[in-house]
Amino acid sequence: MLEGCTKIFALGLLLGTVLTLLFKKFFFKPQEPVNSISEDELSSGSESEELISEDSDMQIEIVDETIEARKNPVIVIALGGNALLQKGDKGTIEDQRKNAKVACKQIVKLVQKGFSVHVVHGNGPQAGAVFLQNVNSKETIPSNPLDVVVSETQGLIGYIIQQELQNELDKQGIKKHVATIITRMEVSAEDPAFKTPTKPIGKFYTEEEAKELEKDGYCMKEDAGRGWRITTFSPQPLRILERPVIESLIKDGNVITISCGGGGIPVVDKDGEIQGVEGVIDKDRAGCLLATQVNADIFMILTDVEQCYLDWGKETKRPLDSMTVEEAEQYLEEGHFAVGSMYPKVQSASRFTKKTKRTAIITSLDKALEAIDGNTGTRMLN
Amino acid sequence: MLEGCTKIFALGLLLGTVLTLLFKKFFFKPQEPVNSISEDELSSGSESEELISEDSDMQIEIVDETIEARKNPVIVIALGGNALLQKGDKGTIEDQRKNAKVACKQIVKLVQKGFSVHVVHGNGPQAGAVFLQNVNSKETIPSNPLDVVVSETQGLIGYIIQQELQNELDKQGIKKHVATIITRMEVSAEDPAFKTPTKPIGKFYTEEEAKELEKDGYCMKEDAGRGWRITTFSPQPLRILERPVIESLIKDGNVITISCGGGGIPVVDKDGEIQGVEGVIDKDRAGCLLATQVNADIFMILTDVEQCYLDWGKETKRPLDSMTVEEAEQYLEEGHFAVGSMYPKVQSASRFTKKTKRTAIITSLDKALEAIDGNTGTRMLN
Repeated sequence: MLEGCTKIFALGLLLGTVLTLLFKKFFFKPQEPVNSISEDELSSGSESEELISEDSDMQIEIVDETIEARKNPVIVIALGGNALLQKGDKGTIEDQRKNAKVACKQIVKLVQKGFSVHVVHGNGPQAGAVFLQNVNSKETIPSNPLDVVVSETQGLIGYIIQQELQNELDKQGIKKHVATIITRMEVSAEDPAFKTPTKPIGKFYTEEEAKELEKDGYCMKEDAGRGWRITTFSPQPLRILERPVIESLIKDGNVITISCGGGGIPVVDKDGEIQGVEGVIDKDRAGCLLATQVNADIFMILTDVEQCYLDWGKETKRPLDSMTVEEAEQYLEEGHFAVGSMYPKVQSASRFTKKTKRTAIITSLDKALEAIDGNTGTRMLN
Repeated sequence: MLEGCTKIFALGLLLGTVLTLLFKKFFFKPQEPVNSISEDELSSGSESEELISEDSDMQIEIVDETIEARKNPVIVIALGGNALLQKGDKGTIEDQRKNAKVACKQIVKLVQKGFSVHVVHGNGPQAGAVFLQNVNSKETIPSNPLDVVVSETQGLIGYIIQQELQNELDKQGIKKHVATIITRMEVSAEDPAFKTPTKPIGKFYTEEEAKELEKDGYCMKEDAGRGWRITTFSPQPLRILERPVIESLIKDGNVITISCGGGGIPVVDKDGEIQGVEGVIDKDRAGCLLATQVNADIFMILTDVEQCYLDWGKETKRPLDSMTVEEAEQYLEEGHFAVGSMYPKVQSASRFTKKTKRTAIITSLDKALEAIDGNTGTRMLN
């Protein structure tokens, strides 16, 4: 009797152990360390890229679905260069710090709302200034090409934003870090944009000065009767070379990244070697690429108007609360949006939504929160 | 009987379950995701800092012992500004790329040897050039203060190094990434270095030009009868503000970081708000701080000589294969090393070894591998 009971007890003990182990094995998966870079991500990624649609000239793939493991919804914000330098500003560092403080207050409010925020920014005024400093000193100091100028502005603007962002986070008692990542953006040497320079940089010159600068290798173009300007190429962004590093920091969850500054440093792949190339990349297109590839929950383009308008500049102009991707494509074709201004924003927003089926929002910096709540801004719907 | 057995069986089942759970709880600790930033690291860290020794004016703490979990031994390399611009170079980007290629070949050899390599670099020639471009254009473009100039050179030099480093890694088939992190370095507003500017930047001016620049707020000093130069402060680095981000990437294991460029952007804590400050920080001191705080296995200072010399410049000069921390402190006091050159290197190397009990090496770029094998260089011994 005693022996039988001991056997039954032992059987129960064994069964209990086995069942517990099996239960733990199948129902409690250990959480993956979300923050290491996998072998998959280490491959260049360019091989598996696919065209997002027939009409698009931009190659985008959503690289990492596992990023869903992150705790907070991810917003990628494309911040206009005018967020740091505004009309009437002299362009001093004090001006830029003052404006950055305002922008960072808004960004931190998004963080407080529970978003994992990541910033892409423009560099128009700053690149113009650094480029001019190069041109002005060219007799005594070798001038840097445009790719290098972009890298300088990434350091400069990144520093100013990260300083004010971290200060505001600390002030609000939020324990997060800010990281500026110097980011290169691959473009195609075959991009038709390299046939015609379209993007003016810096100040206006007289025809005489322009001829002199042409001798130094600068491409000069007459700008609508207002004078001559140094003009460069604006190719399509294809691949963010530092994407795995940015993704690793996004997954960390405690880091706000600043990357793809000025649209990224333009580089081309020349027989397997990456080299810098003259040009500037549209920061909204760069933001769209980052937001899509990291599978952001929201892609937000912050500019100086609260909403997009149809018939902009006409008496019939009217704001848009939302538009579908299909409508956006139609409006773009019908010429409702200014080419150097709202056009690339609407295009980038619609591409993001088309590819990811998620929300893109275009609004002004001070309306970011309201727009997320659906109370203003222009929303791109699938 | 049957009822009794059922009870005993149930008891066994329960006991088995409980024992298994207890056993798992106490003997199988789940592995920590090594790459996330812990709450501890998120605190500023400055509160718990301690002086490393009575004679040292530098506060260092080894922050994270858990970093031992990493797979590969970590080397922090302090790379001289001359690694990118050498005597006789015109200072063009082509010169810098060419020199960076040479430096990166050596760095990749260390990676191939199994080291997790992390780079801190100087910015002397580049900061001089950017600063001069600012001064030359000051009539039309607002000049950037020195902290902002450092941020620009971090972008510029980071880009050049990361481009050539990634190219060489790809060429050798090594699947690693390179990340340049814009890095701020806290200094003390009470640092006595802020009483006397000692660090000259950029070119020589006549006395007349110097008087004009003084009116614009630049501090001018006569430099050993050779002319007048803009001169600034060289405070001690106390805290790397982006350290948690750098550590996160070091722990990742697949990322080579470039950080603390030019010694880091100098900032001070003014009533809880971090602000930029005029000054430049010695990159060897910054490298020492990073290497110590991330508990590097080796701290390597790469310069343009293969070894340190006693009686440098005298007939009795003789190379040092190694020295103990005690000997180093004695030699420093006896004035064996040039103040603007070998002195801060030997000081930084000895501070690292004193604090961590690990090896620091001073040698030239092309001898890095040989020095690690113990065949050349000057080794700091505990």
